[in-house]
Amino acid sequence: MRQNKIKQKWQAGQWVSLGWLSVSHTFTAEVMARLGFDALCVDLQHGLSEMSDVAPMLQAISQTDTVPVVRVAWNEPAAIMKALDLGAYGIIVPLVNNAEEAAKAVAACRYPPVGMRSSGPVRAVHYGGADYVAKANDEIVVMAMIETREGIANLDAICATPGLDAVYIGPADLSFALGLPPRGDNPDPLHIATCDKILAAAHKAGIKCVMHCATAEFAAGAIKRGFDMVMVTSDLSCMIAGVRSELEILKTKTA
Amino acid sequence: MRQNKIKQKWQAGQWVSLGWLSVSHTFTAEVMARLGFDALCVDLQHGLSEMSDVAPMLQAISQTDTVPVVRVAWNEPAAIMKALDLGAYGIIVPLVNNAEEAAKAVAACRYPPVGMRSSGPVRAVHYGGADYVAKANDEIVVMAMIETREGIANLDAICATPGLDAVYIGPADLSFALGLPPRGDNPDPLHIATCDKILAAAHKAGIKCVMHCATAEFAAGAIKRGFDMVMVTSDLSCMIAGVRSELEILKTKTA
Amino acid sequence: MRQNKIKQKWQAGQWVSLGWLSVSHTFTAEVMARLGFDALCVDLQHGLSEMSDVAPMLQAISQTDTVPVVRVAWNEPAAIMKALDLGAYGIIVPLVNNAEEAAKAVAACRYPPVGMRSSGPVRAVHYGGADYVAKANDEIVVMAMIETREGIANLDAICATPGLDAVYIGPADLSFALGLPPRGDNPDPLHIATCDKILAAAHKAGIKCVMHCATAEFAAGAIKRGFDMVMVTSDLSCMIAGVRSELEILKTKTA
Amino acid sequence: MRQNKIKQKWQAGQWVSLGWLSVSHTFTAEVMARLGFDALCVDLQHGLSEMSDVAPMLQAISQTDTVPVVRVAWNEPAAIMKALDLGAYGIIVPLVNNAEEAAKAVAACRYPPVGMRSSGPVRAVHYGGADYVAKANDEIVVMAMIETREGIANLDAICATPGLDAVYIGPADLSFALGLPPRGDNPDPLHIATCDKILAAAHKAGIKCVMHCATAEFAAGAIKRGFDMVMVTSDLSCMIAGVRSELEILKTKTA
Amino acid sequence: MRQNKIKQKWQAGQWVSLGWLSVSHTFTAEVMARLGFDALCVDLQHGLSEMSDVAPMLQAISQTDTVPVVRVAWNEPAAIMKALDLGAYGIIVPLVNNAEEAAKAVAACRYPPVGMRSSGPVRAVHYGGADYVAKANDEIVVMAMIETREGIANLDAICATPGLDAVYIGPADLSFALGLPPRGDNPDPLHIATCDKILAAAHKAGIKCVMHCATAEFAAGAIKRGFDMVMVTSDLSCMIAGVRSELEILKTKTA
Amino acid sequence: MRQNKIKQKWQAGQWVSLGWLSVSHTFTAEVMARLGFDALCVDLQHGLSEMSDVAPMLQAISQTDTVPVVRVAWNEPAAIMKALDLGAYGIIVPLVNNAEEAAKAVAACRYPPVGMRSSGPVRAVHYGGADYVAKANDEIVVMAMIETREGIANLDAICATPGLDAVYIGPADLSFALGLPPRGDNPDPLHIATCDKILAAAHKAGIKCVMHCATAEFAAGAIKRGFDMVMVTSDLSCMIAGVRSELEILKTKTA
Repeated sequence: MRQNKIKQKWQAGQWVSLGWLSVSHTFTAEVMARLGFDALCVDLQHGLSEMSDVAPMLQAISQTDTVPVVRVAWNEPAAIMKALDLGAYGIIVPLVNNAEEAAKAVAACRYPPVGMRSSGPVRAVHYGGADYVAKANDEIVVMAMIETREGIANLDAICATPGLDAVYIGPADLSFALGLPPRGDNPDPLHIATCDKILAAAHKAGIKCVMHCATAEFAAGAIKRGFDMVMVTSDLSCMIAGVRSELEILKTKTA
Repeated sequence: MRQNKIKQKWQAGQWVSLGWLSVSHTFTAEVMARLGFDALCVDLQHGLSEMSDVAPMLQAISQTDTVPVVRVAWNEPAAIMKALDLGAYGIIVPLVNNAEEAAKAVAACRYPPVGMRSSGPVRAVHYGGADYVAKANDEIVVMAMIETREGIANLDAICATPGLDAVYIGPADLSFALGLPPRGDNPDPLHIATCDKILAAAHKAGIKCVMHCATAEFAAGAIKRGFDMVMVTSDLSCMIAGVRSELEILKTKTA
Repeated sequence: MRQNKIKQKWQAGQWVSLGWLSVSHTFTAEVMARLGFDALCVDLQHGLSEMSDVAPMLQAISQTDTVPVVRVAWNEPAAIMKALDLGAYGIIVPLVNNAEEAAKAVAACRYPPVGMRSSGPVRAVHYGGADYVAKANDEIVVMAMIETREGIANLDAICATPGLDAVYIGPADLSFALGLPPRGDNPDPLHIATCDKILAAAHKAGIKCVMHCATAEFAAGAIKRGFDMVMVTSDLSCMIAGVRSELEILKTKTA
Repeated sequence: MRQNKIKQKWQAGQWVSLGWLSVSHTFTAEVMARLGFDALCVDLQHGLSEMSDVAPMLQAISQTDTVPVVRVAWNEPAAIMKALDLGAYGIIVPLVNNAEEAAKAVAACRYPPVGMRSSGPVRAVHYGGADYVAKANDEIVVMAMIETREGIANLDAICATPGLDAVYIGPADLSFALGLPPRGDNPDPLHIATCDKILAAAHKAGIKCVMHCATAEFAAGAIKRGFDMVMVTSDLSCMIAGVRSELEILKTKTA
Repeated sequence: MRQNKIKQKWQAGQWVSLGWLSVSHTFTAEVMARLGFDALCVDLQHGLSEMSDVAPMLQAISQTDTVPVVRVAWNEPAAIMKALDLGAYGIIVPLVNNAEEAAKAVAACRYPPVGMRSSGPVRAVHYGGADYVAKANDEIVVMAMIETREGIANLDAICATPGLDAVYIGPADLSFALGLPPRGDNPDPLHIATCDKILAAAHKAGIKCVMHCATAEFAAGAIKRGFDMVMVTSDLSCMIAGVRSELEILKTKTA
Repeated sequence: MRQNKIKQKWQAGQWVSLGWLSVSHTFTAEVMARLGFDALCVDLQHGLSEMSDVAPMLQAISQTDTVPVVRVAWNEPAAIMKALDLGAYGIIVPLVNNAEEAAKAVAACRYPPVGMRSSGPVRAVHYGGADYVAKANDEIVVMAMIETREGIANLDAICATPGLDAVYIGPADLSFALGLPPRGDNPDPLHIATCDKILAAAHKAGIKCVMHCATAEFAAGAIKRGFDMVMVTSDLSCMIAGVRSELEILKTKTA
């Protein structure tokens, strides 16, 4: 079975760069993949993509060795299993509130007897290899998002979930949970302290911790603080920032 | 009939900003439209889009008052007419070599007796208004690309084509025509001189001249040199430049 | 943030006309929007549309100031949140049986601390405005369908749900609940009396009541009876009725 | 090979009813087919459809015995051949100006040695039957549109084209050709007389004549005048007329 | 209402052949339908299809009298109801563990007062007939998959579920449940014995039993063992096997 | 620039295996690519695909090192250039009748000054590499189909076209040209002799010759006769043959 580069880097003590696909298009996905992220995430929760976009987007990504990751919209076994059958090597599950929900997410990612994933890896067996079913439980990375009040309250229990590979910090919802207005790269001391607390809890439990950033500047800081994976930037935010900058230059230079 | 803001600006002696859509997605089209270009071009020649993308992309654009423009892949009446029926208010025709070809392009954009456009503005009548057929000949802007050796040789004849609104400079193919390697924002003196010669010929013939740029910096210069419309930047190039920059920052800051 | 015309009309004591989109096509959506409804509903429950159709259809609608509404297929937070992220300004939730289910629907439409909506308004922030997250809780309209036996039994409790804007009567399922064969514009006295009872309960609770009709004739009657919004007709039913009528005329006139 | 009901009806001395698909959706196509037209036309010239819509729309139609017809956007062999390969049993070619163009259209519809159609009926052989290639030349109906000044001038020559099955009158473009504003069901005496002249020329040449109408009323009149096929109404126009009428009733009844 | 050929064959004491659609394409669906299966299943669980593919694929199938079946991804009422509204005549529900879950699946397939299906058969009424709502409860076939440990443990209770038409054996997941590596056409004696036990329990309860096979060879054996329906083969597996064989021949013959 | 494996194999004196994609689906394309053909052709002439399918299908193919080839529907520069911009490394042009047409096809595949290809390799530069424009003229393979009477008559002139890489035999149309009923793997001595004559003419002119076969058996024979590339089989024909065989086995074994 094709090995999961995320796991390989983590086993080598290295951090992982993750890019974000908000636009449901196979060409922007391909271009992002060729630009050099370790992994790319198709976002079914807040992005434009639906499950029908996953297969062609993963095909576009898999022209390179970028690891295909999917954020499902909800902690539903059917969605998680479908994303895996289509070839996802990493799953991000949003809004995990407690250990039971984390265990449910893990179970959907693992074949019996470990979990309850149903057998039928329609594309995954072609992408991953003929021994996919036998080895998938060891290669697929499952990440639970910590971003609600309840999730923070149950942090240690979530981190202790058998089979969970990492917790993933969603900074906007986490802001809500902390009574702050939602924003990316939140510099509020409470927000930062909470992230570091989550990081410490994850590491203490022997799992990894991922920080969802909005800029490389902030992401670099997160790496220095010990995060194991950083979401650096998205197709959409780079496009918008670039166009805004160009239009501003045009305005200034023609004033 | 809804008026064409490109024509209005030109009549007011103002230049027009044009954005470029290489990605065939309605959401990136909407975001580009909301960022403030006067006009946006769906590129059927070298972009990802096909005619089946035009209607939804024009709908996305037309949530704003941005003027919808389409570059067809070839000087074919059927393609030009279909783009117009779907609501394009401007047409860019590539690789126009001589006055006969320019006249053919114009004819496809004009209802009889002026031209030979067939009647059937399936979406255009809803977007443009109930009097669309009666007034479309006066509102639709048609632009012929000057970018081949033969096109340069026939520059004055092309500019003299009755009904042609503008000539449009394609810098990469023009580089080929001048024996230079193709590139955007070409600083080669011969290239610049040729562009200025085309600009002068257009203005002498009483029509407009458009420069296809790659950056706002170069576009601002073109405006100062007298161009009537500038293509500033594209969805794709902004996205790529932004991601490259972020990944470079990440690399540097974590080195 | 762009204001919700449904709320504005209600605050002004006016009724609202709603059109229905059973066909998952952006062009029929645009044409319907240009014909003059106050609001249009993309139907994910019994229409042809899936979530992947919502973004382009809302873009098509939002070329006009028609309010975009989505009926989700089920009372699921993930679906409600995704429809809102894509720009829906009104949500209709089917088959609400009790106050707990109504509260769940409301919670999915409201950001914390009021509800549990996750932050990530990917298109909504472009459609609604930069202050979308701060103000969305006040602008989004959420409507619970009363159409089951249990729903009728819990009518007052549902109407009392904090944050619920309106109850919406589904006449076909309501017929089932009343032991009647399902039909639109049901003239059965029991059906009419039940609708009026729901209307009275809604108004008593200080919320609005919407009647799903099949014809303008019936809808006009509903307005006179005090309904605050009426679903008048759909793309599909108008097309079918028109074709049937034309084919009947052809048959008669050529007999 | 499945027989062409258009030909069968014509051989039986009967007229044929044709419906029009402006909307590129398989469900509206299916509904139209189930409503009882003899034939339905997917319009690639002025409708929303592109060639990528043809296969699924013909599949939708062919749940019934309605004959699938395609109007291509232009007299191009590649487009005509592709529509036939996908299963069209009738082809309408717009803007035919002279006998040479008519012969070109016919040639694209016929396998050698009669014509120059290329062999590869990818869906047609499944829809039409295993003997499709051997018999298609006898079953496929090809119709040339007479709607330009030049087309009228060359009427008899066009009608005399070997293998041409019918001429098809496009009333809006014909209005242009006659110096009239384009409209459907044109009551102008010159327009009517021209249509009757085309009809007479077709019948004299032993081929059929089709009238593109906008209403059943006008279509019934055309049948009485001797037309062999009438286009009665479209998905889109019935939808629009119905919605307008309902909104007018709503307005009147609530005034 | 159009009758369900599966039920008709069962009532006549005949077995039913089922084909499988893993590829989400309307053309492969049409070709499969024309090849002669009694029924064809669009697989939303492990196939490439999503709900947005169901309508066009069922249209493609329904050019023939092949019965359209859908396997939903999960035991969710919304998905089951949508597949039925789009015209499915049979529903396969995976991973049914107990009688309560089986009852939930049945309820979603039946209109009140029998079940809780919501009224709105948008395509089904055109495919099935005007009396669809009145008669659908009698025609729709609902099948519960027995493939988990818990499902086997609750076999008799599941089979006794009122309204359940059949149990359906998923051999790969059943292998997991039996502690065997998953595979198709499993010859393991324990697997075979378990299947026969399920078959016996179904028949004892007066319902049907379906075997999901991988080859016609195994399917023929299942028929002899008394199974009422056999899934014979899929679009994808035939394509792969055929290509592998051709490439092997090429290699051998050119060696 | 990524090198063209077709050219590399030819330079090494090896033959090339080509697979055929009649189905316009990215998953069947991926599976075919993973099965081991040297090259795969997306067929825009007689397959289900349109230009809008090319980009995602080439992405699917390019997860492997299979060379992506496109057969355009007609000898049109716009279509050829678009297929190349999307990343095709080989172009097959059907129905080439004479040297002028062959030269037109070649010109569309080559940048100036050699040809007249327009600059804008939107995906090709990402797939091929940053030096794509500089080197594409040397890597892209262009093949002209010899399959008409006129094409055979002008065989030597076509083969002598500067820049043409190969001639490609279309056996069904060639059958027509020879007065034979069209079929694949035609054993008719005249057909075979004609193919060998084309092969000899190609080799004499120093270019390659490709045989379009229907089975590996026939393809192996073609290789032995000296053909440089063989089209072995297609997604569709393998699927159909496999299903027919399985259904036949089922019928026999249950008789």
